[in-house]
Amino acid sequence: MKRKLLYALLLTAGTMSSVSAQTDEQMLARIREEGMLKSQVMATALQFTDVAGPRLANSPGLKRAQDWAVNELKTWGAVNAKREPWGKFGKGWEIQKNYVAITAPYYHNIIAIPKAWTPGTNGLVKGDVVLLKVDSLPDLAKYQGKLKGKIVMMDVKGTGGQTYRADASRYTDSALTAMGNATLAPAGGGQRRGGPGARGNMAAAAALRQALPKFYLAEGVSLVLSQARGTDGTVFTSNGASYADTAKAVAPEIETSTEDYQRILRLSKAGVKVGLEADIKTEFFTNDLQGYNVVGELPGTDPKLKDQLVIIGGHLDSWHAATGATDNAAGCAVMMEAMRILKRVGFKPRRTIRIVLWSSEEQGIHGSHNYVLNHFGDAKTMVLKPEHAKVSAYYNLDNGTGKIRGIYLQGNAAAGDLFKSWFAPFKDLGATTVTISNTGGTDHLSFDAVGIPGFQFIQDGMDYNTRTHHTNQDTYDKLSEDDLKQASTIVASLVYNTSQRDEMLPRKPLPVAQPPKN
Amino acid sequence: MKRKLLYALLLTAGTMSSVSAQTDEQMLARIREEGMLKSQVMATALQFTDVAGPRLANSPGLKRAQDWAVNELKTWGAVNAKREPWGKFGKGWEIQKNYVAITAPYYHNIIAIPKAWTPGTNGLVKGDVVLLKVDSLPDLAKYQGKLKGKIVMMDVKGTGGQTYRADASRYTDSALTAMGNATLAPAGGGQRRGGPGARGNMAAAAALRQALPKFYLAEGVSLVLSQARGTDGTVFTSNGASYADTAKAVAPEIETSTEDYQRILRLSKAGVKVGLEADIKTEFFTNDLQGYNVVGELPGTDPKLKDQLVIIGGHLDSWHAATGATDNAAGCAVMMEAMRILKRVGFKPRRTIRIVLWSSEEQGIHGSHNYVLNHFGDAKTMVLKPEHAKVSAYYNLDNGTGKIRGIYLQGNAAAGDLFKSWFAPFKDLGATTVTISNTGGTDHLSFDAVGIPGFQFIQDGMDYNTRTHHTNQDTYDKLSEDDLKQASTIVASLVYNTSQRDEMLPRKPLPVAQPPKN
Repeated sequence: MKRKLLYALLLTAGTMSSVSAQTDEQMLARIREEGMLKSQVMATALQFTDVAGPRLANSPGLKRAQDWAVNELKTWGAVNAKREPWGKFGKGWEIQKNYVAITAPYYHNIIAIPKAWTPGTNGLVKGDVVLLKVDSLPDLAKYQGKLKGKIVMMDVKGTGGQTYRADASRYTDSALTAMGNATLAPAGGGQRRGGPGARGNMAAAAALRQALPKFYLAEGVSLVLSQARGTDGTVFTSNGASYADTAKAVAPEIETSTEDYQRILRLSKAGVKVGLEADIKTEFFTNDLQGYNVVGELPGTDPKLKDQLVIIGGHLDSWHAATGATDNAAGCAVMMEAMRILKRVGFKPRRTIRIVLWSSEEQGIHGSHNYVLNHFGDAKTMVLKPEHAKVSAYYNLDNGTGKIRGIYLQGNAAAGDLFKSWFAPFKDLGATTVTISNTGGTDHLSFDAVGIPGFQFIQDGMDYNTRTHHTNQDTYDKLSEDDLKQASTIVASLVYNTSQRDEMLPRKPLPVAQPPKN
Repeated sequence: MKRKLLYALLLTAGTMSSVSAQTDEQMLARIREEGMLKSQVMATALQFTDVAGPRLANSPGLKRAQDWAVNELKTWGAVNAKREPWGKFGKGWEIQKNYVAITAPYYHNIIAIPKAWTPGTNGLVKGDVVLLKVDSLPDLAKYQGKLKGKIVMMDVKGTGGQTYRADASRYTDSALTAMGNATLAPAGGGQRRGGPGARGNMAAAAALRQALPKFYLAEGVSLVLSQARGTDGTVFTSNGASYADTAKAVAPEIETSTEDYQRILRLSKAGVKVGLEADIKTEFFTNDLQGYNVVGELPGTDPKLKDQLVIIGGHLDSWHAATGATDNAAGCAVMMEAMRILKRVGFKPRRTIRIVLWSSEEQGIHGSHNYVLNHFGDAKTMVLKPEHAKVSAYYNLDNGTGKIRGIYLQGNAAAGDLFKSWFAPFKDLGATTVTISNTGGTDHLSFDAVGIPGFQFIQDGMDYNTRTHHTNQDTYDKLSEDDLKQASTIVASLVYNTSQRDEMLPRKPLPVAQPPKN
């Protein structure tokens, strides 16, 4: 559609009756108007971030966000809105106190985050930091019986220093062109790095890594300091223990900013005693070990197609040190907004449109994997359920706060021209690129694994990799309103087109069942 | 000197006797060898940062750094090394506990730093945050009697979002060329911004700013939250009260990261109660209100010139949230290293070389101002002391960790060709530019104010303005070793040349006395 026509339609759309039969162009113009000019995406994002708080898998924060989403979907007129259990996940966990400071040679409060699913310190602990010199398993012996109540750290390289590259960036035209021209890389394993010696060293390092938690616990260390990736106060977080209800106990462990970690390390190496105090309280939740996804629907209205599905989603769980704004409140807020837009413009879809906000993505893509297992089929055996045949497409958003620049076909070449035509009206908003390439790491993989067309969008990277992805700085202020409006509008339009098309989206050949491992 | 010759000399210098008469070229080559290949600058910087800690004016951390410097200068063989009092400064202050977290709607430890010279909370305080809507003085009335024990904040704009410019940068060749070609800007006042209305608003805002501390204290608020400049965990700090021993009391006040401040603000504006707890302990030191500079000398050996001085320095005091690595442990470590290099190469200077590490620069350039007042003259009256005539030059370093790219002549055109010739051997190290321009903000101004040639170097900016200057991230790991070696070598060489030259450096006409203010 030409741009002038689009804006002419924008101006007239509001005066038209929503019950009259409308052309695709008219509906798409209304979608664009609602998405770009009357957006609620930031209000939704605020609820998922500031109001709900950190949303680690099975945490109270995730539950708050899920409950809000269910209620909001109902308010908007979605049907079948609920938290749907997908099977056993494990324990919930949250931080209830976090205080760490060095007290000698002078006082300095440090930036540090407890690793997820680690215990607290059981009140204020104080002690000198002990620098462990451990290169391999046998080195542990020299510390046996000497670490009770101690605070320990290892000698690791810092990640600090100057940064001569901007934290944030967007795709250049040439990068997008290259993505559009890409061909599928041949399947097959990458090369191992190094020779047998390197493999031996890696095995020894892995053995040490595996032995350490048990050793720390057995020796009764009071706190383990680890160094976090990140600079300038930004701390990337991870987990320090299993979420399984049967998980073995570990010692308390914190991820420390590189600046603070290296300061303690330099002092220790210079022979200056570093005193440290910490008061960390974490809480485990075991009353409900089930994992849940949020679902809701706009029911289909075409008697022949209403049993078919267009599914959209993103993972609502986050890491624990911030409020997971770009990972992935952004994606969830956009998908919620797409639902709101479609409902608000009075769209009566031919196929049923379903939103699913996944959980436990960060812990292994569990929410979507189990949802697909429960509803559509088992990627291991390729034993499929009847509904498998009824899903036209799954669209996922989980690449931060940047606007949509295109879509990954995930090898589904036959869908390429469709997406090109659906993206055509959004050239002015920067979304043009259809790449045959695969992208990984998130929930569309669960659909792709059983042969249902599953897509993830290309988004401008912004400062996802430098500042927000899994960090203590993934907060609401890192969200870009204009980008999220654009993404909501484009997703709503693609969903509209997918719902209204006479045929379902083309599929790739079904994957083969994976032989059971011995 | 040609580069080939220089390295040839480098190779032979070590074998020559230090007591034999050496040519300038030979001595400069030995200086370069010592500075670039046998540097101790990082070891010195480590003592000033990690080991001494924050070095706020008159704090215990500054005292530790000063004592270490005096002792080290003595160890190196400098004479007259001591802490020299310069007059009354005021109270010392340091942080002894710093814990702040929100506790509702969920727990989250926040990045916040007490403002310098503010009191602590006298134990753990807890309460809901009260968002004050105060645009002008009369608005305060509505809160009278309602803030006892409350934690308060104002509605201010955030500083977050994406950054599309690199944090760190170096001077480009074209920027240096432009500096070299600059002419002196005519003296005279800049234009006021805005009309009478704008001035009225500014006056009202200033009146409110002035009234607030008294109001907070009178109302008995338990904690004031302010927003810090900075992003991603970086917090720029400042002071929140006077250091004077007669200063009026204020309420406890913390500078909060923009991400945390804006989160609390958004929640408050959305009607969500934010609970906060804080435990801040700060200590004032009043046992010695004097300010001190560190001094030390390499005595002159030429009977006619040894009473004349070449002075080098930088300020050793810092802000309190980190260890002032780039501001200005870097400059002090370089100046110490220049002294070490000159002593180590067996240099017997004609003029006396004096190092002075200033204090209270961050609080108003007090250390150097009072030193000049005590030794050389009064800029207000232009009543000068005899020693005023004996200072050839003062060299200052206080622009972070970047290498030296040249020097600011501070309008002293007659010194331009000298510096060009003295920089010539360092073209390969990137130091070439002699600019007629002034630069301000640090201790060379105290000398310039009484007509003694005072110079500050041009240094690559690195991430000084984005990440380190007055922030909680100004730590040792932000120091660039190669840059500091280069700076030490160049300073030592310039000091060598200034000491050996038959004449003192040319001076500008004496400034006129400043008429007393009514």
